[in-house]
Amino acid sequence: MKTTILIHCPDQPGIVHAVTGFVQAKGGNVVYLDQHVDQEADVFFMRLESDFDSHTYVFEEFRENFDKEVALPYAMKWQIYKEGHKPRMAIFVSKYNHCLYDLLSRYHAGELQVTIPFILSNHASLAPIAAQFDIPFHHVPVTKTTKVEAEEKQLQLLREERVDFIVLARYMQIVSGMLIGNYVNKIINIHHSFLPAFAGAKPYHAAFERGVKIIGATSHYVTEALDAGPIIEQDVTTVSHSHSIADFIAKGRDLEKIVLARAVRLHVQRKTIVYNNKTVIFS
Amino acid sequence: MKTTILIHCPDQPGIVHAVTGFVQAKGGNVVYLDQHVDQEADVFFMRLESDFDSHTYVFEEFRENFDKEVALPYAMKWQIYKEGHKPRMAIFVSKYNHCLYDLLSRYHAGELQVTIPFILSNHASLAPIAAQFDIPFHHVPVTKTTKVEAEEKQLQLLREERVDFIVLARYMQIVSGMLIGNYVNKIINIHHSFLPAFAGAKPYHAAFERGVKIIGATSHYVTEALDAGPIIEQDVTTVSHSHSIADFIAKGRDLEKIVLARAVRLHVQRKTIVYNNKTVIFS
Amino acid sequence: MKTTILIHCPDQPGIVHAVTGFVQAKGGNVVYLDQHVDQEADVFFMRLESDFDSHTYVFEEFRENFDKEVALPYAMKWQIYKEGHKPRMAIFVSKYNHCLYDLLSRYHAGELQVTIPFILSNHASLAPIAAQFDIPFHHVPVTKTTKVEAEEKQLQLLREERVDFIVLARYMQIVSGMLIGNYVNKIINIHHSFLPAFAGAKPYHAAFERGVKIIGATSHYVTEALDAGPIIEQDVTTVSHSHSIADFIAKGRDLEKIVLARAVRLHVQRKTIVYNNKTVIFS
Amino acid sequence: MKTTILIHCPDQPGIVHAVTGFVQAKGGNVVYLDQHVDQEADVFFMRLESDFDSHTYVFEEFRENFDKEVALPYAMKWQIYKEGHKPRMAIFVSKYNHCLYDLLSRYHAGELQVTIPFILSNHASLAPIAAQFDIPFHHVPVTKTTKVEAEEKQLQLLREERVDFIVLARYMQIVSGMLIGNYVNKIINIHHSFLPAFAGAKPYHAAFERGVKIIGATSHYVTEALDAGPIIEQDVTTVSHSHSIADFIAKGRDLEKIVLARAVRLHVQRKTIVYNNKTVIFS
Repeated sequence: MKTTILIHCPDQPGIVHAVTGFVQAKGGNVVYLDQHVDQEADVFFMRLESDFDSHTYVFEEFRENFDKEVALPYAMKWQIYKEGHKPRMAIFVSKYNHCLYDLLSRYHAGELQVTIPFILSNHASLAPIAAQFDIPFHHVPVTKTTKVEAEEKQLQLLREERVDFIVLARYMQIVSGMLIGNYVNKIINIHHSFLPAFAGAKPYHAAFERGVKIIGATSHYVTEALDAGPIIEQDVTTVSHSHSIADFIAKGRDLEKIVLARAVRLHVQRKTIVYNNKTVIFS
Repeated sequence: MKTTILIHCPDQPGIVHAVTGFVQAKGGNVVYLDQHVDQEADVFFMRLESDFDSHTYVFEEFRENFDKEVALPYAMKWQIYKEGHKPRMAIFVSKYNHCLYDLLSRYHAGELQVTIPFILSNHASLAPIAAQFDIPFHHVPVTKTTKVEAEEKQLQLLREERVDFIVLARYMQIVSGMLIGNYVNKIINIHHSFLPAFAGAKPYHAAFERGVKIIGATSHYVTEALDAGPIIEQDVTTVSHSHSIADFIAKGRDLEKIVLARAVRLHVQRKTIVYNNKTVIFS
Repeated sequence: MKTTILIHCPDQPGIVHAVTGFVQAKGGNVVYLDQHVDQEADVFFMRLESDFDSHTYVFEEFRENFDKEVALPYAMKWQIYKEGHKPRMAIFVSKYNHCLYDLLSRYHAGELQVTIPFILSNHASLAPIAAQFDIPFHHVPVTKTTKVEAEEKQLQLLREERVDFIVLARYMQIVSGMLIGNYVNKIINIHHSFLPAFAGAKPYHAAFERGVKIIGATSHYVTEALDAGPIIEQDVTTVSHSHSIADFIAKGRDLEKIVLARAVRLHVQRKTIVYNNKTVIFS
Repeated sequence: MKTTILIHCPDQPGIVHAVTGFVQAKGGNVVYLDQHVDQEADVFFMRLESDFDSHTYVFEEFRENFDKEVALPYAMKWQIYKEGHKPRMAIFVSKYNHCLYDLLSRYHAGELQVTIPFILSNHASLAPIAAQFDIPFHHVPVTKTTKVEAEEKQLQLLREERVDFIVLARYMQIVSGMLIGNYVNKIINIHHSFLPAFAGAKPYHAAFERGVKIIGATSHYVTEALDAGPIIEQDVTTVSHSHSIADFIAKGRDLEKIVLARAVRLHVQRKTIVYNNKTVIFS
């Protein structure tokens, strides 16, 4: 049975040796290990995949012992995941359907190892797509006066469905600090620009205005600072003077889909660590 | 004999027909024509290459007649270039040598159809490279108190050598309005970021700090607004959490060289039109 | 009313002038013109978009007159399309669903200006996706002994539904010369390699075996020579030693979707001309 | 003092633990560790950088003990490099100068941690560039009848100058098995195509003929099979129908320079392991 461990902690000699020794002592074989030290911050990062004999290995026991015997002495912040566990992913959308279609197609094709308990939107217009893929759809309208109430409703749904993380698939609302506080580094957004260029509203219009030759998309964890959270993935595509804003938007759609899907996959595969408002992305 | 014409003017029916008719009447054959209308601004752009019989064609005569009979009636802003003309290009540098080496290598290899009358720097350190390639080198130091004087010295050199355009190959000084006014859309800069992100000083440090996954370089015509002139060319490369600032700088060097060289080539090949603080780049 | 004209013919002086003159005489305004001469083959290529006053313009009349007065004298091969015409596109699939999902999502989102009369497969497994998008699905099994019969059935369906062009969205069968002969330069295939590398079966396995650092996908018009037709679009993505064949396949899926969708869009927008087993792709 | 170790061996439990334990016991701190198991071949690969206290650490002693106590028991093929060691790199060229200029510029700028004892060519034409950079130049003409003799002369020069590895910077000759046998996985070539497409002579012509939309360059270790050695690095750039063969060649030059330089840098930084005619490239 495969187990994935993510670690970061203050650097000191002997960490790799201690971790691999523990894994070995418990009958595991390390099949993948990616480690590096941020020399400026003096922080140690590691991702480790190990194979255990499924007959003798007890996940909960391993976790408990690792915490006591390895994590604690080295002051580690760490996470552990067992193979086959599917996190529960909620999707928030507004009216744009391209990212939603892309995620649902991948989900349906078995590309994403998640469960999707529901899709939530401030508009009703994408309900038919949810129906098409047979996934519950919640219409939670958001207005200035009902925003607090709406977010409480959202949080209630997220809790009822034990949602592990949220994907904002072109959800055009600003998410409140209350929701972010409940899902720290667990809300993934797609912004339709090459951040930090063109943060905020209407980035394609701004890019057109500036006359750039390349446009981009950025997927990041949501923090309270708008479009300033830890970047998970970015990609770009070329544009030219002959493209209109409509062309930018059309080309951008493909970028947004790909970049968001990659970010979701990295998150689901436990290949991200957030540190210092940046991400470590393991390969 | 090949002749290249660049045109922009208010759009109206019949322009292509008028231009190609005139070329044909003068014995020319259109071998390349790239035209489009900026529908928002209602402006017509065209680049046209024509072949003329070198026995009967008189360039100056054609130019004069075209101006009178075609350009004037359509209120065109236009330029014409005859084959084989090599513009005179001055290179300004400070201490970084990678862009300078790249330009001189290309020049030496016959890739750039220019003449380089001199290299100018506010430091003496790159003089040996100029010597290596047998090109005159002028050391014009710039300090706060001598800046005006230095720029006058620069302008004098540019005039004496009848320089057509200037390439700032990592010239770390801000160029004054006086110089820019004398070389409007004729000073090409390379900025080591994906503009408009990270304008100003130390963009690699800022990119590292922000945790971006892609870094870029931008070549643009210099205007009085810092790093805000018309963009000619951009390119990007991926970076990861495992890269240090030094790695960013090393990867960036390759980008800077390539992007600046492409921009210079586009300028030399008369494939750029500046309009509305943006460029039209013909293919 | 916008009209698009595609032309290729032996090069000679005066073609652009003649075409734009004719358009102008009929009350049209050229809004886009992209022209070039293949100097080696001495062939002239042009794509032209013109705006006509919809009150006075009769498309059929224009077409007829253009043919007689312009196309004939210059020995042009040409095509003309009026705005708003939606070609009828059949999709052929086998068992892979990612390209199908991608095309249908785009169709549903209004990105592709086509009508999809039916989806056809040699397997029944993707019928639910067709149902999900409410598009007729024909299951036409193909075996060695029934291949001829199957293709006749296909051709009959294509004719009944007046299909203009066919997209092979990972249709794992070799299409016969009979079908190709009926749809010359009208069958678009996606091949999961960077052609001409790894033509034929199992390209990802071959790429893995060779240890390449980049994999690709290629969309091309189908000819009788396997994977050797005119290339419409290609794209690539990086891979590394740490990727398994399964990773290649997963990364490739995204490439295949994007490359096929771009090729289909170029075809639908009348931006392709086939000449000499190559394509001219207008921007 | 930093030490880099590269290892591959049959996979079995405990290798990482054993290696890191040994490093730790000798007073080293692991600062970078990249490891993975090729699950199909069941081979373990690792690259490890460790910091040792330069007062107590004796490199030769460490090497000897590691070999006996760790490498032998696990049947490792391994290499070890100490910080600051500069390998001696010979450059072979013919008449093209762009890759040579690029390598020498990087060398001069301090980007490449190598020593260049000489440049060798079958033509005299690039001697001035060697002189420009003050590097010895050997003209060793190669004809059908003198090929054996020429290679013996080459080998003699390589030995006299204790050359560690050879870069074929567009050296247009086929290198013999004799030379390859003396420099296994130590001859780096740049081929001007996206291998395995267009192996052999005139790849740009072949790419033009085929009508591809992307061209590439490939750097690989030289083996006796032509253009079929382990690939170190590849990159690509887009082309279009409007590009001539001359344009392909010009665009390709930039690719060749960059791809070769990256491959050389990876080799110099000890980031490559060759296994099974493929490379493992550490990040």
